[in-house]
Amino acid sequence: MLLEQIKTPVDLKRLTMDELIQLAVELRRFIIDVVAVKEGHLGASLGVVELTIALHYVFDTPEDLLVWDVGHQAYGHKILTGRRDIFNTNRQKGGISGFPKREESVYDVFGVGHSSTAISAVLGMAIASKLKGNSEKHHIAVVGDASIASGMAFEGLNHAGVTDANILVILNDNAIGIDPSVGALKDYLTAVKEGRNPRANNMIESLHFDYTGPIDGHDLPKLIKELEKLKSTEGPKFLHIITTKGKGLKQAEENQVKYHAPGKFDSRTGELMRVEENEFPTKYQDVFGLTLVELAEQNLDIVGITPAMPTGSSLKYMMEAFPERALDVGIAEQHAVTLAAGMATQGLIPFCAIYSTFLQRAYDQVIHDVALQNLPVIFCLDRAGLVGEDGATHQGVYDIAYLNCIPNIVIVAPMNELELRNMLYTAQLRIDYPLAIRYPRGKGVMSSSWKQSFVKIKLGLTRELQKGNKFALISTGTIGNNAVEAFKECPSSEWSHYHFLFVKPLNEEVLHEIFGKHQKVVTLEEGTVIGGFGSRIAQFAALHYPGICVEVLGIKDEFVEHATVKQQQQQCGIDTESIKEIINSY
Amino acid sequence: MLLEQIKTPVDLKRLTMDELIQLAVELRRFIIDVVAVKEGHLGASLGVVELTIALHYVFDTPEDLLVWDVGHQAYGHKILTGRRDIFNTNRQKGGISGFPKREESVYDVFGVGHSSTAISAVLGMAIASKLKGNSEKHHIAVVGDASIASGMAFEGLNHAGVTDANILVILNDNAIGIDPSVGALKDYLTAVKEGRNPRANNMIESLHFDYTGPIDGHDLPKLIKELEKLKSTEGPKFLHIITTKGKGLKQAEENQVKYHAPGKFDSRTGELMRVEENEFPTKYQDVFGLTLVELAEQNLDIVGITPAMPTGSSLKYMMEAFPERALDVGIAEQHAVTLAAGMATQGLIPFCAIYSTFLQRAYDQVIHDVALQNLPVIFCLDRAGLVGEDGATHQGVYDIAYLNCIPNIVIVAPMNELELRNMLYTAQLRIDYPLAIRYPRGKGVMSSSWKQSFVKIKLGLTRELQKGNKFALISTGTIGNNAVEAFKECPSSEWSHYHFLFVKPLNEEVLHEIFGKHQKVVTLEEGTVIGGFGSRIAQFAALHYPGICVEVLGIKDEFVEHATVKQQQQQCGIDTESIKEIINSY
Repeated sequence: MLLEQIKTPVDLKRLTMDELIQLAVELRRFIIDVVAVKEGHLGASLGVVELTIALHYVFDTPEDLLVWDVGHQAYGHKILTGRRDIFNTNRQKGGISGFPKREESVYDVFGVGHSSTAISAVLGMAIASKLKGNSEKHHIAVVGDASIASGMAFEGLNHAGVTDANILVILNDNAIGIDPSVGALKDYLTAVKEGRNPRANNMIESLHFDYTGPIDGHDLPKLIKELEKLKSTEGPKFLHIITTKGKGLKQAEENQVKYHAPGKFDSRTGELMRVEENEFPTKYQDVFGLTLVELAEQNLDIVGITPAMPTGSSLKYMMEAFPERALDVGIAEQHAVTLAAGMATQGLIPFCAIYSTFLQRAYDQVIHDVALQNLPVIFCLDRAGLVGEDGATHQGVYDIAYLNCIPNIVIVAPMNELELRNMLYTAQLRIDYPLAIRYPRGKGVMSSSWKQSFVKIKLGLTRELQKGNKFALISTGTIGNNAVEAFKECPSSEWSHYHFLFVKPLNEEVLHEIFGKHQKVVTLEEGTVIGGFGSRIAQFAALHYPGICVEVLGIKDEFVEHATVKQQQQQCGIDTESIKEIINSY
Repeated sequence: MLLEQIKTPVDLKRLTMDELIQLAVELRRFIIDVVAVKEGHLGASLGVVELTIALHYVFDTPEDLLVWDVGHQAYGHKILTGRRDIFNTNRQKGGISGFPKREESVYDVFGVGHSSTAISAVLGMAIASKLKGNSEKHHIAVVGDASIASGMAFEGLNHAGVTDANILVILNDNAIGIDPSVGALKDYLTAVKEGRNPRANNMIESLHFDYTGPIDGHDLPKLIKELEKLKSTEGPKFLHIITTKGKGLKQAEENQVKYHAPGKFDSRTGELMRVEENEFPTKYQDVFGLTLVELAEQNLDIVGITPAMPTGSSLKYMMEAFPERALDVGIAEQHAVTLAAGMATQGLIPFCAIYSTFLQRAYDQVIHDVALQNLPVIFCLDRAGLVGEDGATHQGVYDIAYLNCIPNIVIVAPMNELELRNMLYTAQLRIDYPLAIRYPRGKGVMSSSWKQSFVKIKLGLTRELQKGNKFALISTGTIGNNAVEAFKECPSSEWSHYHFLFVKPLNEEVLHEIFGKHQKVVTLEEGTVIGGFGSRIAQFAALHYPGICVEVLGIKDEFVEHATVKQQQQQCGIDTESIKEIINSY
């Protein structure tokens, strides 16, 4: 095995071209074998096996600085840079991250996870090198075609083009992100690839980049030759390569969406492991996606928007049912939100499905375009709370805090599928405020059908789940089910448990009642303890009920690394066991 | 006067071409006369007088939907759409807004203020029209060349290009935003204008837009002719017009930066009113800009970054002194922040000067690229707090809340020029955390020189400004000076007053001392009461000192409209008088 001999990229330089080609076969095999068992992101890394080898062969990493945009495609990079032996710990607690991460390796010069950051980061490095007199250093950003269409990437290109920074942007063009790429730029790139565009390189050259391509990204000798050439070219350079996502595994090439992160599969045949799937509990994503179709059948004003996550968010169901009324706008969260605002001004009812962590990209648009104008845009905040294996870059734990401070907006956190469903129903009954509905990744809690008749939810709804005489636990969202479980395991007549569906507006009337008849209050949420749901209740108490102690449970003031959701809940002290301990300590 | 006859745009349609040309003269004169006395944004509106008339003449507003990106240029629009008589109330409390605003007029179909939102908003409207069967409706976005270079605008174009939406994007190309435009796209547009680019329209056509231009934006008959033609063209259209910012007032044309918002001037000669300027108190912006130059002289690793605000932020001083080390990256906050992060990885010390309200645009980058990697990027958060006449779109009152929930980041709010200066000094002594320094727009409080020897500030610094025996007021930032004033006017031995320079980390040791010896605590900040500085103190109290009441003063949970800063402080109950009332009520 050649692969075993590669401890660092320096070892690559001793290989012949034939050996490098052999190494590509081994590396691809290794990725497939490990991911088949350990799970993770497959297709993206398979697509850049040749590029990964070529880059580390031609350049002198880590002296030359290499940033993989998003990072899904960096498995090969990790394996060739000293992490082959621990690659089987990928995405596990205490193991390596699924994304490049500075703490993990000197070869990971910039942490990634969200898309379209690489050009800006690399340009910053290249300008630094210039200022520090390191004119021989190379700075390379590898960016997919879905990511380069995002506004931030354009900002980076637009600036880089007027510098003399020594940067190389490699466009890894495979016409797909997680779902197929969309947009005018994608059409343009497709035309270039297919030779239909006689002015192939104009758009990039117009931004003052030295353009090369398109070339076959699986042709290793050609890649090496082009990279060698570009190595001696000064200033901003752009290499356009064409690759196939999932390259080398037939099923992954043929079903690129599914094999982006396929779960366990047979490493030889590529066949997915059959997982027995019961209908219930259903994923919250499907509760959202399927309910939206039901509602859209009745209410013609409903439209759905997703920035590049039709499959992940399950908006795909509406896209299939009503292609004119459900839009994938690509990795363009800012645009998605203001587009929704524009639609709302004309009487449409936009459901904007965005992961909590990605709404961070459109924060200004939420404030300035939606909330300030009090437009009834409905944000379906997917993957809110702890996200598990994707880790720190993707945690959806800030949204309560960053939305809480915005006037006009209403924030709800359903406790189960039915509440999510009924909030979606309520949202399209012509509400007159912006609404954020947050729900976690994965399965719900109901073992029977949530497809019940719709019930309109009253603004400010709270539910008393358990009546006690001394202490009160107030939870919001699905994490409240941990408290239910804890009380089931440790029954107590002293403890009341309330569920607040509405984080905002905070139901102060009910709070007055609760504080009027309890001695202590504990709050529970799957969000930051700073600025969140409990924080406001504590503030309420400090003003109106000094004398009653409030303890706020949630995500402490630190980043939560990759692990299972359960492990992360333990770490944050909001799993069932931790809640039991707290109950028992009072 | 023709202008007096224009009550609504319908009245325009009765005018002959000669009369329209005469109207342009009158409209320009009217804007100059009012702004000369009442102040406001001048240059942008003067540049689009002909375009404004042409648009309202050709299209049927408000049925046809017209959005002015940013909105600085919409004075003519306001005057022609029924607001001539109240135009002299522009930007005053209770008067009309300096920006288009939905509540104000049916002709203002989308509120603006921050840049680059218009294409997305208009596309949302156009898609809505299609779905609702209004195929005859027109949807027009007027975007400046500085704004179109922002990522969000690219996202809008990229989506629009693959739709059949009936939208018209008008690029108002005057090569300047508030400061001169920068970037590769700007160079490209300049080449197109000057006929140096034989492939003039490729970049826009590559995005599937029907391109027309460039044409002279001050040639009213030509504009009308082109707009009439475009009116009957289906799908996404792009009209490139060349204008001169400040057109029609010689000084404004010659000194476009100064005359963006020139303050009072002689409406006949254009001469600026001489304002007697003492050296002290100095603007916080200049304390920042001048101190940075001093520091940069000594510390070669310092770099400065501004997204399009060299003049407003006073980074211009460093750009003049060290052009290689101080960068204007254009309206690209996302890029600016990640660029800074990239620089920080290579040992540079980036000072990223961004208005509080515009950092909202880079929220994800602050979390994901800076804080998660714990990179020592220094955010100089200009115009933090209430901003006065710019109003609700520009309030810098959310930053404490939206940064508070992010791990690793340190947030400081200096109380005066000296603390700002010394924090800038401390920041470049190789701190190992991201730092946000927030300070307001305008003048400081020191009547003598702040150019004193540098003093390193200890993490967590607090100051006891006044010692009392019963109640404690804890303030952060310059708003604390209102409390100092209040205590001066109403001396009290019962009240202590503490200044917390550090919002985060919150100095809990000092808080324990304070809560240990006072019966009630009032907090004061120029930021939202939800999720801010006081909110955390209340939360601290509810956990550790139940029994001590905490009242949080700051910006209540509502948008604060345009007025003077003083009026806004009154409205929020944080002006000196309000604080006196609170002191006296205890």
